[in-house]
Amino acid sequence: MEYYSKEITKLIEALSGLPGIGSKTAQRLAFHILNMPEEQVQNLSSSIINAKRNVKYCKECFTLTDEEICPICKDAKRDHSTIMVVENTRDLGAYEKTGKYNGVYHVLHGAISPMLGIGPQDIKLKELMTRLQKDVKEVIIATNSSLEGETTAMYISKLIKPTGIKVSRIASGVPVGGDLEYIDEVTLLRALEGRTTL
Amino acid sequence: MEYYSKEITKLIEALSGLPGIGSKTAQRLAFHILNMPEEQVQNLSSSIINAKRNVKYCKECFTLTDEEICPICKDAKRDHSTIMVVENTRDLGAYEKTGKYNGVYHVLHGAISPMLGIGPQDIKLKELMTRLQKDVKEVIIATNSSLEGETTAMYISKLIKPTGIKVSRIASGVPVGGDLEYIDEVTLLRALEGRTTL
Repeated sequence: MEYYSKEITKLIEALSGLPGIGSKTAQRLAFHILNMPEEQVQNLSSSIINAKRNVKYCKECFTLTDEEICPICKDAKRDHSTIMVVENTRDLGAYEKTGKYNGVYHVLHGAISPMLGIGPQDIKLKELMTRLQKDVKEVIIATNSSLEGETTAMYISKLIKPTGIKVSRIASGVPVGGDLEYIDEVTLLRALEGRTTL
Repeated sequence: MEYYSKEITKLIEALSGLPGIGSKTAQRLAFHILNMPEEQVQNLSSSIINAKRNVKYCKECFTLTDEEICPICKDAKRDHSTIMVVENTRDLGAYEKTGKYNGVYHVLHGAISPMLGIGPQDIKLKELMTRLQKDVKEVIIATNSSLEGETTAMYISKLIKPTGIKVSRIASGVPVGGDLEYIDEVTLLRALEGRTTL
Protein backbone atom coordinates (compact mmCIF):
# COMPACT_ATOMS: atom_id res chain seq x y z
CA MET A 1 0.00 0.00 0.00
CA GLU A 2 2.81 2.41 -0.89
CA TYR A 3 0.32 4.82 -2.47
CA TYR A 4 -0.67 6.06 0.98
CA SER A 5 1.79 7.76 3.29
CA LYS A 6 3.52 5.80 6.08
CA GLU A 7 1.29 6.76 9.00
CA ILE A 8 -1.87 6.02 7.02
CA THR A 9 -0.49 2.66 5.87
CA LYS A 10 0.44 1.76 9.45
CA LEU A 11 -3.08 2.59 10.63
CA ILE A 12 -4.68 0.58 7.80
CA GLU A 13 -2.45 -2.40 8.61
CA ALA A 14 -3.24 -2.22 12.33
CA LEU A 15 -6.97 -2.12 11.60
CA SER A 16 -6.77 -5.01 9.09
CA GLY A 17 -5.53 -7.17 11.95
CA LEU A 18 -8.99 -7.09 13.54
CA PRO A 19 -11.44 -9.94 12.85
CA GLY A 20 -13.78 -9.39 9.92
CA ILE A 21 -11.96 -6.24 8.81
CA GLY A 22 -10.55 -6.71 5.32
CA SER A 23 -8.26 -4.26 3.59
CA LYS A 24 -11.12 -2.26 1.99
CA THR A 25 -12.96 -1.86 5.30
CA ALA A 26 -9.69 -0.99 7.03
CA GLN A 27 -9.13 1.80 4.49
CA ARG A 28 -12.66 3.10 5.01
CA LEU A 29 -12.20 3.08 8.79
CA ALA A 30 -8.77 4.70 8.59
CA PHE A 31 -9.98 7.64 6.51
CA HIS A 32 -12.99 8.01 8.76
CA ILE A 33 -10.67 8.18 11.78
CA LEU A 34 -8.54 10.82 10.03
CA ASN A 35 -11.68 12.90 9.61
CA MET A 36 -12.88 12.52 13.19
CA PRO A 37 -12.33 15.36 15.70
CA GLU A 38 -9.02 14.96 17.59
CA GLU A 39 -10.83 14.51 20.89
CA GLN A 40 -12.84 11.56 19.60
CA VAL A 41 -9.71 9.95 18.14
CA GLN A 42 -7.92 10.41 21.47
CA ASN A 43 -10.87 8.73 23.18
CA LEU A 44 -10.85 5.76 20.78
CA SER A 45 -7.11 5.30 21.12
CA SER A 46 -7.12 5.50 24.92
CA SER A 47 -10.20 3.26 25.34
CA ILE A 48 -8.30 0.55 23.47
CA ILE A 49 -5.18 0.71 25.56
CA ASN A 50 -7.02 1.28 28.87
CA ALA A 51 -9.34 -1.65 28.33
CA LYS A 52 -6.39 -3.91 27.55
CA ARG A 53 -4.40 -2.69 30.57
CA ASN A 54 -7.15 -2.66 33.18
CA VAL A 55 -9.38 -5.55 32.23
CA LYS A 56 -8.56 -8.85 33.92
CA TYR A 57 -10.38 -11.99 35.01
CA CYS A 58 -12.84 -11.79 37.91
CA LYS A 59 -11.27 -13.86 40.71
CA GLU A 60 -14.57 -15.61 41.31
CA CYS A 61 -16.19 -16.33 37.91
CA PHE A 62 -13.35 -15.44 35.48
CA THR A 63 -15.40 -13.03 33.39
CA LEU A 64 -13.48 -10.06 31.98
CA THR A 65 -13.82 -7.09 34.30
CA ASP A 66 -11.84 -4.10 35.55
CA GLU A 67 -12.41 -4.96 39.21
CA GLU A 68 -11.02 -7.75 41.41
CA ILE A 69 -14.47 -9.28 41.75
CA CYS A 70 -17.02 -8.49 39.03
CA PRO A 71 -20.27 -6.65 39.84
CA ILE A 72 -22.33 -9.82 39.33
CA CYS A 73 -20.26 -11.89 41.79
CA LYS A 74 -20.31 -8.97 44.25
CA ASP A 75 -24.09 -8.63 44.08
CA ALA A 76 -25.55 -10.09 47.28
CA LYS A 77 -29.05 -10.05 45.75
CA ARG A 78 -28.09 -12.69 43.19
CA ASP A 79 -28.42 -16.40 43.83
CA HIS A 80 -24.86 -17.60 44.40
CA SER A 81 -25.94 -21.23 44.62
CA THR A 82 -26.80 -21.38 40.89
CA ILE A 83 -23.87 -21.17 38.46
CA MET A 84 -24.34 -20.83 34.72
CA VAL A 85 -21.29 -22.07 32.81
CA VAL A 86 -20.61 -20.13 29.58
CA GLU A 87 -17.80 -20.22 27.03
CA ASN A 88 -16.93 -16.54 27.12
CA THR A 89 -17.84 -13.10 28.46
CA ARG A 90 -19.98 -12.29 25.41
CA ASP A 91 -22.20 -15.30 26.13
CA LEU A 92 -22.54 -14.02 29.69
CA GLY A 93 -23.57 -10.66 28.18
CA ALA A 94 -26.18 -12.39 26.05
CA TYR A 95 -27.86 -13.96 29.09
CA GLU A 96 -27.54 -10.78 31.17
CA LYS A 97 -29.35 -8.91 28.42
CA THR A 98 -32.43 -11.09 29.01
CA GLY A 99 -32.54 -9.60 32.53
CA LYS A 100 -34.24 -12.79 33.80
CA TYR A 101 -31.33 -14.86 35.09
CA ASN A 102 -30.61 -14.22 38.74
CA GLY A 103 -27.79 -16.69 39.43
CA VAL A 104 -24.07 -16.19 38.92
CA TYR A 105 -21.78 -17.32 36.08
CA HIS A 106 -18.60 -19.21 35.39
CA VAL A 107 -16.68 -18.26 32.25
CA LEU A 108 -14.62 -21.10 30.76
CA HIS A 109 -12.77 -19.00 28.15
CA GLY A 110 -13.08 -21.63 25.48
CA ALA A 111 -14.50 -25.08 24.87
CA ILE A 112 -12.89 -28.49 24.63
CA SER A 113 -11.81 -29.05 21.02
CA PRO A 114 -9.62 -32.03 20.13
CA MET A 115 -9.41 -30.59 16.59
CA LEU A 116 -7.78 -27.38 17.85
CA GLY A 117 -5.85 -29.19 20.57
CA ILE A 118 -7.83 -27.54 23.38
CA GLY A 119 -8.17 -29.95 26.28
CA PRO A 120 -10.00 -29.68 29.63
CA GLN A 121 -6.84 -28.24 31.21
CA ASP A 122 -6.85 -25.30 28.79
CA ILE A 123 -10.17 -23.87 29.95
CA LYS A 124 -11.25 -22.68 33.42
CA LEU A 125 -12.60 -26.08 34.47
CA LYS A 126 -10.41 -26.76 37.49
CA GLU A 127 -11.52 -23.34 38.76
CA LEU A 128 -15.17 -24.37 38.33
CA MET A 129 -14.61 -27.54 40.34
CA THR A 130 -13.01 -25.49 43.13
CA ARG A 131 -16.09 -23.24 43.25
CA LEU A 132 -18.35 -26.27 43.66
CA GLN A 133 -16.83 -26.94 47.09
CA LYS A 134 -18.87 -23.98 48.35
CA ASP A 135 -22.63 -24.17 48.71
CA VAL A 136 -23.79 -24.74 45.11
CA LYS A 137 -27.17 -26.24 44.27
CA GLU A 138 -27.25 -26.22 40.46
CA VAL A 139 -24.84 -25.89 37.57
CA ILE A 140 -26.53 -24.83 34.31
CA ILE A 141 -24.35 -25.60 31.32
CA ALA A 142 -24.85 -22.93 28.67
CA THR A 143 -21.97 -23.70 26.32
CA ASN A 144 -22.73 -23.24 22.62
CA SER A 145 -24.77 -25.76 20.70
CA SER A 146 -21.72 -26.60 18.55
CA LEU A 147 -19.67 -29.81 18.50
CA GLU A 148 -17.15 -28.23 20.91
CA GLY A 149 -19.86 -26.80 23.15
CA GLU A 150 -21.66 -30.15 23.37
CA THR A 151 -18.42 -32.02 24.07
CA THR A 152 -17.62 -29.56 26.84
CA ALA A 153 -21.13 -29.88 28.29
CA MET A 154 -20.87 -33.69 28.34
CA TYR A 155 -17.43 -33.54 29.95
CA ILE A 156 -18.51 -31.11 32.66
CA SER A 157 -21.68 -33.04 33.49
CA LYS A 158 -19.65 -36.25 33.91
CA LEU A 159 -17.23 -34.41 36.21
CA ILE A 160 -19.95 -32.90 38.38
CA LYS A 161 -22.43 -35.78 38.63
CA PRO A 162 -20.45 -37.72 41.29
CA THR A 163 -20.62 -34.64 43.58
CA GLY A 164 -24.41 -34.91 43.70
CA ILE A 165 -24.91 -31.31 42.55
CA LYS A 166 -27.73 -30.88 40.01
CA VAL A 167 -26.41 -30.34 36.47
CA SER A 168 -28.65 -29.04 33.69
CA ARG A 169 -28.20 -28.05 30.07
CA ILE A 170 -30.03 -25.17 28.34
CA ALA A 171 -32.58 -26.44 25.79
CA SER A 172 -31.80 -26.91 22.12
CA GLY A 173 -34.62 -26.38 19.65
CA VAL A 174 -36.38 -24.10 17.23
CA PRO A 175 -35.56 -20.41 17.93
CA VAL A 176 -38.57 -18.27 18.83
CA GLY A 177 -39.94 -16.77 15.63
CA GLY A 178 -38.01 -19.36 13.63
CA ASP A 179 -39.67 -20.80 10.54
CA LEU A 180 -39.53 -24.63 10.59
CA GLU A 181 -38.96 -24.61 6.85
CA TYR A 182 -35.56 -22.96 7.20
CA ILE A 183 -34.28 -24.90 10.19
CA ASP A 184 -31.75 -27.72 9.81
CA GLU A 185 -32.74 -31.32 10.52
CA VAL A 186 -30.50 -31.75 13.55
CA THR A 187 -32.20 -28.82 15.27
CA LEU A 188 -35.64 -30.15 14.29
CA LEU A 189 -34.82 -33.54 15.80
CA ARG A 190 -33.50 -31.89 18.96
CA ALA A 191 -36.70 -29.88 19.24
CA LEU A 192 -38.72 -33.10 18.90
CA GLU A 193 -36.66 -34.96 21.52
CA GLY A 194 -36.90 -32.02 23.90
CA ARG A 195 -40.68 -31.61 23.51
CA THR A 196 -42.57 -30.66 26.65
CA THR A 197 -46.11 -31.65 27.68
CA LEU A 198 -48.67 -28.85 27.41
CA MET B 1 -24.58 -2.29 28.31
CA GLU B 2 -24.23 -2.44 32.09
CA TYR B 3 -23.60 -6.18 31.95
CA TYR B 4 -19.99 -5.50 30.93
CA SER B 5 -17.56 -3.64 33.13
CA LYS B 6 -16.90 0.08 32.61
CA GLU B 7 -13.68 -0.13 30.61
CA ILE B 8 -15.15 -2.76 28.27
CA THR B 9 -18.32 -0.72 27.77
CA LYS B 10 -16.26 2.36 26.98
CA LEU B 11 -14.25 0.44 24.39
CA ILE B 12 -17.40 -1.01 22.80
CA GLU B 13 -18.96 2.46 22.64
CA ALA B 14 -15.86 3.99 21.06
CA LEU B 15 -15.75 1.24 18.43
CA SER B 16 -19.48 1.56 17.67
CA GLY B 17 -18.80 5.13 16.57
CA LEU B 18 -16.94 3.87 13.49
CA PRO B 19 -18.83 3.57 10.19
CA GLY B 20 -20.36 0.17 9.48
CA ILE B 21 -19.61 -1.07 13.01
CA GLY B 22 -22.83 -1.91 14.82
CA SER B 23 -23.05 -2.87 18.47
CA LYS B 24 -22.59 -6.63 17.82
CA THR B 25 -19.48 -6.10 15.70
CA ALA B 26 -18.14 -3.61 18.24
CA GLN B 27 -18.50 -6.26 20.96
CA ARG B 28 -16.74 -8.84 18.80
CA LEU B 29 -13.89 -6.41 18.09
CA ALA B 30 -13.63 -5.32 21.73
CA PHE B 31 -13.25 -8.87 23.04
CA HIS B 32 -10.78 -9.63 20.26
CA ILE B 33 -8.72 -6.61 21.32
CA LEU B 34 -8.81 -7.77 24.96
CA ASN B 35 -7.35 -11.09 23.81
CA MET B 36 -4.61 -9.59 21.65
CA PRO B 37 -1.03 -9.41 22.98
CA GLU B 38 -0.35 -6.12 24.79
CA GLU B 39 2.24 -5.09 22.20
CA GLN B 40 -0.24 -5.40 19.34
CA VAL B 41 -2.87 -3.43 21.28
CA GLN B 42 -0.30 -0.71 21.98
CA ASN B 43 0.48 -0.62 18.27
CA LEU B 44 -3.19 -0.29 17.28
CA SER B 45 -3.82 2.43 19.83
CA SER B 46 -0.75 4.46 18.86
CA SER B 47 -1.32 4.06 15.09
CA ILE B 48 -4.71 5.66 15.55
CA ILE B 49 -3.49 8.67 17.47
CA ASN B 50 -0.29 9.09 15.45
CA ALA B 51 -2.11 8.98 12.14
CA LYS B 52 -4.57 11.62 13.35
CA ARG B 53 -1.80 13.85 14.74
CA ASN B 54 0.68 13.61 11.90
CA VAL B 55 -1.43 13.32 8.80
CA LYS B 56 -2.23 16.61 7.06
CA TYR B 57 -2.96 17.86 3.55
CA CYS B 58 -0.17 17.87 0.96
CA LYS B 59 0.51 21.55 0.22
CA GLU B 60 0.45 20.82 -3.50
CA CYS B 61 -2.36 18.33 -4.21
CA PHE B 62 -4.19 18.22 -0.85
CA THR B 63 -4.03 14.46 -0.47
CA LEU B 64 -3.67 13.19 3.10
CA THR B 65 -0.01 12.62 3.90
CA ASP B 66 2.44 12.86 6.79
CA GLU B 67 4.90 15.05 4.85
CA GLU B 68 4.70 18.70 3.72
CA ILE B 69 4.60 17.62 0.07
CA CYS B 70 3.38 14.09 -0.68
CA PRO B 71 5.67 11.50 -2.36
CA ILE B 72 3.70 11.73 -5.63
CA CYS B 73 4.03 15.53 -5.91
CA LYS B 74 7.72 15.25 -4.95
CA ASP B 75 8.42 12.63 -7.63
CA ALA B 76 10.28 14.33 -10.48
CA LYS B 77 9.70 11.31 -12.74
CA ARG B 78 5.95 11.94 -12.79
CA ASP B 79 4.27 14.16 -15.34
CA HIS B 80 3.40 17.35 -13.45
CA SER B 81 1.56 18.82 -16.42
CA THR B 82 -1.30 16.28 -16.12
CA ILE B 83 -3.55 16.62 -13.07
CA MET B 84 -6.19 14.05 -12.20
CA VAL B 85 -8.95 15.52 -10.02
CA VAL B 86 -10.41 13.06 -7.49
CA GLU B 87 -12.92 13.42 -4.67
CA ASN B 88 -10.77 11.94 -1.92
CA THR B 89 -7.51 10.22 -1.01
CA ARG B 90 -9.04 6.75 -1.36
CA ASP B 91 -9.93 7.46 -4.99
CA LEU B 92 -6.32 8.53 -5.50
CA GLY B 93 -5.31 5.21 -3.96
CA ALA B 94 -7.58 3.36 -6.37
CA TYR B 95 -5.87 4.90 -9.41
CA GLU B 96 -2.38 4.50 -7.93
CA LYS B 97 -3.09 0.82 -7.49
CA THR B 98 -3.45 0.46 -11.27
CA GLY B 99 0.21 1.53 -11.49
CA LYS B 100 -0.42 2.97 -14.97
CA TYR B 101 -1.15 6.63 -14.27
CA ASN B 102 1.97 8.76 -14.35
CA GLY B 103 0.56 12.25 -13.79
CA VAL B 104 -0.17 13.97 -10.49
CA TYR B 105 -3.44 14.42 -8.59
CA HIS B 106 -5.66 17.04 -7.02
CA VAL B 107 -7.85 15.94 -4.13
CA LEU B 108 -11.07 17.94 -3.75
CA HIS B 109 -12.14 16.45 -0.39
CA GLY B 110 -15.76 16.22 -1.41
CA ALA B 111 -18.08 16.92 -4.30
CA ILE B 112 -20.58 19.68 -4.93
CA SER B 113 -23.92 18.63 -3.43
CA PRO B 114 -26.78 21.13 -3.17
CA MET B 115 -28.70 18.49 -1.20
CA LEU B 116 -26.05 18.41 1.53
CA GLY B 117 -25.34 22.12 1.23
CA ILE B 118 -21.82 21.56 -0.13
CA GLY B 119 -20.95 24.30 -2.58
CA PRO B 120 -17.89 24.91 -4.78
CA GLN B 121 -16.30 26.96 -1.97
CA ASP B 122 -16.41 23.94 0.39
CA ILE B 123 -14.10 21.75 -1.68
CA LYS B 124 -10.50 22.38 -2.79
CA LEU B 125 -11.50 24.03 -6.08
CA LYS B 126 -9.89 27.45 -5.60
CA GLU B 127 -6.67 25.57 -4.87
CA LEU B 128 -7.03 23.66 -8.15
CA MET B 129 -7.46 26.90 -10.11
CA THR B 130 -4.31 28.29 -8.45
CA ARG B 131 -2.35 25.22 -9.57
CA LEU B 132 -3.48 25.74 -13.15
CA GLN B 133 -1.46 28.97 -13.32
CA LYS B 134 1.65 26.78 -13.55
CA ASP B 135 2.44 24.79 -16.67
CA VAL B 136 -0.53 22.36 -16.88
CA LYS B 137 -1.52 20.64 -20.15
CA GLU B 138 -4.46 18.47 -19.13
CA VAL B 139 -6.92 18.14 -16.27
CA ILE B 140 -8.54 14.69 -16.05
CA ILE B 141 -11.72 14.79 -13.98
CA ALA B 142 -12.09 11.51 -12.10
CA THR B 143 -14.87 12.39 -9.67
CA ASN B 144 -17.36 9.58 -8.98
CA SER B 145 -20.03 8.66 -11.46
CA SER B 146 -22.73 9.80 -9.00
CA LEU B 147 -25.01 12.82 -9.22
CA GLU B 148 -22.62 14.84 -7.05
CA GLY B 149 -19.57 13.63 -8.94
CA GLU B 150 -21.11 14.52 -12.31
CA THR B 151 -22.23 17.94 -11.07
CA THR B 152 -18.72 18.63 -9.81
CA ALA B 153 -17.20 17.44 -13.11
CA MET B 154 -19.48 19.76 -15.11
CA TYR B 155 -18.72 22.69 -12.82
CA ILE B 156 -14.96 22.19 -13.02
CA SER B 157 -14.95 21.77 -16.79
CA LYS B 158 -16.88 25.04 -17.19
CA LEU B 159 -14.39 26.80 -14.89
CA ILE B 160 -11.34 25.49 -16.72
CA LYS B 161 -12.44 25.70 -20.37
CA PRO B 162 -11.87 29.48 -20.69
CA THR B 163 -8.21 28.96 -19.69
CA GLY B 164 -7.64 26.85 -22.81
CA ILE B 165 -6.29 23.89 -20.80
CA LYS B 166 -7.53 20.51 -22.04
CA VAL B 167 -10.20 19.04 -19.72
CA SER B 168 -11.22 15.40 -19.92
CA ARG B 169 -13.52 13.07 -18.00
CA ILE B 170 -12.84 9.39 -17.30
CA ALA B 171 -15.15 7.08 -19.29
CA SER B 172 -18.45 5.78 -17.96
CA GLY B 173 -19.59 2.38 -19.18
CA VAL B 174 -19.83 -1.32 -18.56
CA PRO B 175 -17.20 -2.48 -16.02
CA VAL B 176 -14.69 -5.01 -17.35
CA GLY B 177 -16.05 -8.49 -16.69
CA GLY B 178 -19.51 -6.98 -16.14
CA ASP B 179 -22.52 -8.90 -17.38
CA LEU B 180 -24.82 -6.65 -19.48
CA GLU B 181 -27.84 -8.37 -18.01
CA TYR B 182 -27.12 -7.03 -14.54
CA ILE B 183 -26.16 -3.51 -15.48
CA ASP B 184 -28.55 -0.59 -15.04
CA GLU B 185 -29.99 1.22 -18.05
CA VAL B 186 -28.24 4.52 -17.40
CA THR B 187 -24.85 2.80 -17.50
CA LEU B 188 -25.85 0.89 -20.65
CA LEU B 189 -26.84 4.15 -22.38
CA ARG B 190 -23.59 5.79 -21.26
CA ALA B 191 -21.64 2.86 -22.67
CA LEU B 192 -23.51 3.22 -25.98
CA GLU B 193 -22.91 6.99 -26.17
CA GLY B 194 -19.25 6.51 -25.33
CA ARG B 195 -18.68 3.76 -27.93
CA THR B 196 -15.34 3.80 -29.72
CA THR B 197 -14.56 2.77 -33.30
CA LEU B 198 -12.69 -0.52 -33.60
